Amino acid sequence: MHNEFDLVARHFYRPTPQTRLGPGDDGALLCPAPGMELAVTSDMLVCGVHFLPDADPGNLGWKTLAVNLSDLAAMGAKARWALLAMSLPAADEDWLAAFSEGFYACARTFGVDLVGGDTTRGALSLCVTALGEVPAGEALCRDRAQAGDDLWLSGHPGLAALGLRHLQGEIVLPEPLCRLCLHRLHAPAPRLALGERLRLIAHAAIDISDGLMADAGHIAERSGLTAEIFLHRLPRLPQGVEQAVAREALLCGGDDYELAFTASPRQRPALARIAAQLDIPLWRVGQMRADAATPSARLLDSEGKIVPLVKQGYDHFHAPFSGASPFSLAKE
Amino acid sequence: MHNEFDLVARHFYRPTPQTRLGPGDDGALLCPAPGMELAVTSDMLVCGVHFLPDADPGNLGWKTLAVNLSDLAAMGAKARWALLAMSLPAADEDWLAAFSEGFYACARTFGVDLVGGDTTRGALSLCVTALGEVPAGEALCRDRAQAGDDLWLSGHPGLAALGLRHLQGEIVLPEPLCRLCLHRLHAPAPRLALGERLRLIAHAAIDISDGLMADAGHIAERSGLTAEIFLHRLPRLPQGVEQAVAREALLCGGDDYELAFTASPRQRPALARIAAQLDIPLWRVGQMRADAATPSARLLDSEGKIVPLVKQGYDHFHAPFSGASPFSLAKE
Repeated sequence: MHNEFDLVARHFYRPTPQTRLGPGDDGALLCPAPGMELAVTSDMLVCGVHFLPDADPGNLGWKTLAVNLSDLAAMGAKARWALLAMSLPAADEDWLAAFSEGFYACARTFGVDLVGGDTTRGALSLCVTALGEVPAGEALCRDRAQAGDDLWLSGHPGLAALGLRHLQGEIVLPEPLCRLCLHRLHAPAPRLALGERLRLIAHAAIDISDGLMADAGHIAERSGLTAEIFLHRLPRLPQGVEQAVAREALLCGGDDYELAFTASPRQRPALARIAAQLDIPLWRVGQMRADAATPSARLLDSEGKIVPLVKQGYDHFHAPFSGASPFSLAKE
Repeated sequence: MHNEFDLVARHFYRPTPQTRLGPGDDGALLCPAPGMELAVTSDMLVCGVHFLPDADPGNLGWKTLAVNLSDLAAMGAKARWALLAMSLPAADEDWLAAFSEGFYACARTFGVDLVGGDTTRGALSLCVTALGEVPAGEALCRDRAQAGDDLWLSGHPGLAALGLRHLQGEIVLPEPLCRLCLHRLHAPAPRLALGERLRLIAHAAIDISDGLMADAGHIAERSGLTAEIFLHRLPRLPQGVEQAVAREALLCGGDDYELAFTASPRQRPALARIAAQLDIPLWRVGQMRADAATPSARLLDSEGKIVPLVKQGYDHFHAPFSGASPFSLAKE
C-alpha cells in the first residue's frame, strides 16, 4: 500500500538534466538562458469533457503534455519544462505507471523536463503548465497578422476529429484511414520544430485546437482583419469517408494540433524550403484582408462567394463531449 | 448569455504591467530579470477535498492563489506571475465575479500578474501555477538543513485548523477567537516578505501545508537529520478552546501556511531583527540533530522524552475531507 507521496515519487520523479532543482521541494528552480523570454501556458483536461473515462492511460499521458507543447509551438518557443497537477479518484498504480510512461515518452521526444506539480484526490482531471524559451522579441503572437499576408496551414487537420467520430460510432472509417485518424487523435505531435522555424518569418500564429475556422478567426479578431479561407485551396480530403464529413472535420477539428499562421507573400520561397526540410505539408489556404467591419474568418468558394457556416467554435459550456459536433457547414 | 471566452475575458483579463504578453494568446511571455532564477509551483484545489461546495467564492479566489504564493515564500522567491486553470460545472457569472475579485485582491496585495490559464467544463477544481524570481543560488530548499541548526516557526499555526473544526461542528469556538480562526482559514497570508528576508540566513525552509510535524519531517528527511521539536517551546496556545485540541491543531494544522525553517544559532540576532521589522512572531521551536537512524521529526517534552504521535501527515488518498483530523496526539 503506497501513500500519495510514494506513488508520485515512484512514477514522476525522473532526472531533470536541464533544471537547477526538480521535483520534491516547495517549487522547482529554472534558469532561463540569457536573452530569452519565457513562454508559459496552462491547459486542464477533464475526464468526460476532453477524454473518455476508459481512455488508454499511455495515450492520455502523451496527449496531456502534447496539447500544452502545441501552445508553445504556436509561440515559436523551444519547449523546456512542464509541471503536472493531477486530481485522481484513486491511487491506481497500473494506471499511473502507464500514464507516466506516455507522459515521459512525449517529454523525451520534445526535450522537456517534468519539474513539479501536485497530486490530489478527486474526479480525474489533469492540468499541465508548460514553459519554453524564445529569443526576446521573436515570439509569434495572434495579433500581428498584416493585411495582404498569406494564411497558411500545416499538416492534415481533421483526421483526429474523424477518429473521434469513429470512436463515438457516428461514422465508420475504413482501414488504413482509421488507424491513421486514431493515431492523430491519441498521439498528436506538437509542431515545435515548425514553430521555431517560423520565428522572424510568420507574422502571427496559433495552434488549431478549436478548429481552423475558429482559430483563424482568433487571429483575424486580434489583428483587426478578415481571414479569407478558400475552399479550393484546402488540403485534399481523405478518401473512404463522406466528403462533407471530412470537410467539416478539416474546418472544425482541433485535436490534430496543427498550426495556422500568416506571413508576407515574400516568404513563400522560405516556407517552401521549411516544408521540405521538416517534411511537413504547408498549405497556403487563404489571405488576410483589411476590409474588416467585423474582423472574423470566412470561407469562400472558387467564385469568391461566402460559404455560410453555422457555428465556428468549441465552447465547453455549451457543447457536451458526446453530443453533436460543435461545428457544422450549412448548405453550400 | 455569455460564452466561455466572454466570461473569462470579462473577469480575468486585467492589466499585467510586469509582463511582456498577458492573457489572450497561446501563452504568456515573461521576461525574468537578469541574474534571477525562476521558482515555479503548481497546486490543484478540488471541491469536496480542499474546500466545501458552498465555500464563499471571494475567499476561495484569495486562497487559491495564496496557497501557491506560500510555496514561493518557502523558496525565498519574490512572487511575480500566476496562471489559473479552472474546471467549472456551469458558467455562473456571479460566482466568477466574486471569485475573480478575491483572486485579484490577493494578486494585488502580493504584486502578482495573472498572465493566463484555461477554462473548461467539469467538476469544480482550480489549478494555479505561480512563478517567482530569486537571485541565482539564493533559493531556500528543503534539503540544506545542517546539524546544530535551530528550527524556527513563524506566526500562530493551528488557528486555521481550529476554524475548520468549528465549521465542521466538531468544536465550538468563542468570539473573538472564532472570527480570527476563520479569517486565517479563509484568507491565509503567504509569508512572502519573510521568505525574501530569509535568503542567505536560513539553511532550509518549507511552508506548513501538511502540519508542523509532517513538514518539519520533510526537511529532516531531505536533509538526512532529525528535527527535534520541544513541546515547551511551541507558541502559546489560544484560550477558549480545549488545550489538547489547540495543541493538535498547532502540530498538524497546515491551512495557515506559515513557514518552518532552520538557521545557524549565529543568526538568532538577525532573526530577532527580522521578526521585529516585519512584525511577525518567530518561534525557535527546536533543533536539527545528526543522530538520525531514520531521519524524521519528533516531539519532546520538557524532560527530553519523546511524545508519541499517531500520524504525522495528510494523505489525500486516505484522509477524507470531512472525516477525522488526519493527525492526533497519542496520550501524553
